[in-house]
Amino acid sequence: MVEYVRVYVDELRRFTSECFMKCGVPKGDADIIADHLVLANLRGVDSHGVIRIPVYIEGIKKGYVKSFSESRIIKESMATVLIDGGGGLGIPIATKATDLAIEKCRSVGLAAVGVRNLGHVGMLAYYTLKIAKNNLIGLVTANGPAIVVPWGGIEPIFGANPISIAFPTSSKPIVIDMATSAMAHFKILLAALKNEKIPEGVALTKDGKPTTDPREAQLLLPFGGYKGYAIALTIEVLSSILIGGQLSKYIVLHGSTQGGFFVLAIDPTVFREYSEYLKDIDTLIKFIKSCKPAQGFNEVLLPGELEDKTFEERLRKGIPIDINTWKMLTEVAKELNIELPKTL
Amino acid sequence: MVEYVRVYVDELRRFTSECFMKCGVPKGDADIIADHLVLANLRGVDSHGVIRIPVYIEGIKKGYVKSFSESRIIKESMATVLIDGGGGLGIPIATKATDLAIEKCRSVGLAAVGVRNLGHVGMLAYYTLKIAKNNLIGLVTANGPAIVVPWGGIEPIFGANPISIAFPTSSKPIVIDMATSAMAHFKILLAALKNEKIPEGVALTKDGKPTTDPREAQLLLPFGGYKGYAIALTIEVLSSILIGGQLSKYIVLHGSTQGGFFVLAIDPTVFREYSEYLKDIDTLIKFIKSCKPAQGFNEVLLPGELEDKTFEERLRKGIPIDINTWKMLTEVAKELNIELPKTL
Repeated sequence: MVEYVRVYVDELRRFTSECFMKCGVPKGDADIIADHLVLANLRGVDSHGVIRIPVYIEGIKKGYVKSFSESRIIKESMATVLIDGGGGLGIPIATKATDLAIEKCRSVGLAAVGVRNLGHVGMLAYYTLKIAKNNLIGLVTANGPAIVVPWGGIEPIFGANPISIAFPTSSKPIVIDMATSAMAHFKILLAALKNEKIPEGVALTKDGKPTTDPREAQLLLPFGGYKGYAIALTIEVLSSILIGGQLSKYIVLHGSTQGGFFVLAIDPTVFREYSEYLKDIDTLIKFIKSCKPAQGFNEVLLPGELEDKTFEERLRKGIPIDINTWKMLTEVAKELNIELPKTL
Repeated sequence: MVEYVRVYVDELRRFTSECFMKCGVPKGDADIIADHLVLANLRGVDSHGVIRIPVYIEGIKKGYVKSFSESRIIKESMATVLIDGGGGLGIPIATKATDLAIEKCRSVGLAAVGVRNLGHVGMLAYYTLKIAKNNLIGLVTANGPAIVVPWGGIEPIFGANPISIAFPTSSKPIVIDMATSAMAHFKILLAALKNEKIPEGVALTKDGKPTTDPREAQLLLPFGGYKGYAIALTIEVLSSILIGGQLSKYIVLHGSTQGGFFVLAIDPTVFREYSEYLKDIDTLIKFIKSCKPAQGFNEVLLPGELEDKTFEERLRKGIPIDINTWKMLTEVAKELNIELPKTL
């Protein structure tokens, strides 16, 4: 039994863009969303890939996000910008915010940009990779609908509150991209579909009791105990309180919604010659890659290394779309009268 | 049997300052070190309190740090400063760097300061508290002698690589201050002294085998699996590679040494009215403090809340110094011909 359909990368991009254009998204924005979702699939981050097409479209229909909205700068200083996204789809607005951070950082050496009032921003690595490709260090955070409890508590206070950090190197950037929950929400939904248990210590029932049944899991624990809780809290402040985005507690629980979006960029050349920075980060990579692996590990991985490998492979072989997602895309194609992406 | 001696706060400060002056540290610097170490004791962070006096003095004697060294700015831009610490004791230099970050942040809204070539900087919360008391958000990192393995590896690459972040609120700042190792190195030494086991999953033997025997524990695991590893790596880049500090692998293993020191400050008013920021952070605190506690917890704590309580208590009752530390201080007092702090 075939469990997935393999599609051409360009075709998936074309299809995605057309879907959003049919929903009233301007071509430029639709192309950015397509580039974003397809990059997520290319990197193997399927939870943030084209599976989001029907989710975002539903968000538009239900009025959680607008297909188009003029975002505007509401506060600006030499090194910082605050943007109001006007409630539009998050990806195009967050992309523009990232471009602004890069521009500011080039002139000041350090820049921070915040966006409030926008939809789901997708895979954070999309933004930090963009920054790192400009030879800058990028840090991006976002908060979302409250599903994560504080350490020692049983009520949801934080979103999955992801953070991504990317460092340029002399080859591919090192890219961290992770939720601050112990397990990704999506993986719990997947375990429920597959009738599998989830590990202990990652989720609670709605009454705050520990559970390994994904169908009962309503609340997520932060990763790494009280230390991960501290990181989740930090992301909550940066992405919402600092910039006037919604607190996670107030965000509608839907796959198209988000709280706020925060970008920080640092230009290494304000401290050192870029070549010196590269020499040292390459040394660190060498240390890590030559580190003796622990039992059960073949090698020590850099953050983002697996995603880079998947990217290379899928770029060559096309993108595998699991059969459930393909069915959903087929329905979308039918409803919007768009040709499905060509399969290999 | 008395397990500790309780001393007057001012007396402990006086004693600490005199110790360092006798070792050739200028009065201003000695006073900063005294203020720092005593604050650590006041906050209950005894591992970074006056127990460090003999350690730092040994560092001076062995030539790991200098009792005095003119630190100098080697690169500066509008929002950033790079300092060479000249190999001096870390605390006074890191304090000056923090002051510079505050000053730059006041004018630009965002500032980053790096210091390379300096000794142990002590308790990071000292610096972020200073920043938060100026109504700014502070983030501070440092790297140290390599004792932490990367996730999936069994060779030391990172230091305990602590991070501290402080957020001003309308009452006390929220203060995060934590190592990125699963357990603090100091707590493992303490367990060995007390003949106690350490939990599973925090340390390895020198050959990379998991151990619960603190005397065999030579390598530490990062907190929170691969996510904590990613944070440890980030701190390594910010504190050493970005600013030209030593990589953790190259730092001499001693309690007086450090790699580099990195400070970031953000002024919330570049994004919002300060009163709006305060209103929202107070709301988050309210959510957290009113959150139903999990089984086995009396309440949900904010990061730094326990330390604040200890601070209030010790300020009133004096500082308890455990008997082993007191013996060490007695030896130092004798050697340097200084009067021991008066006890209550």
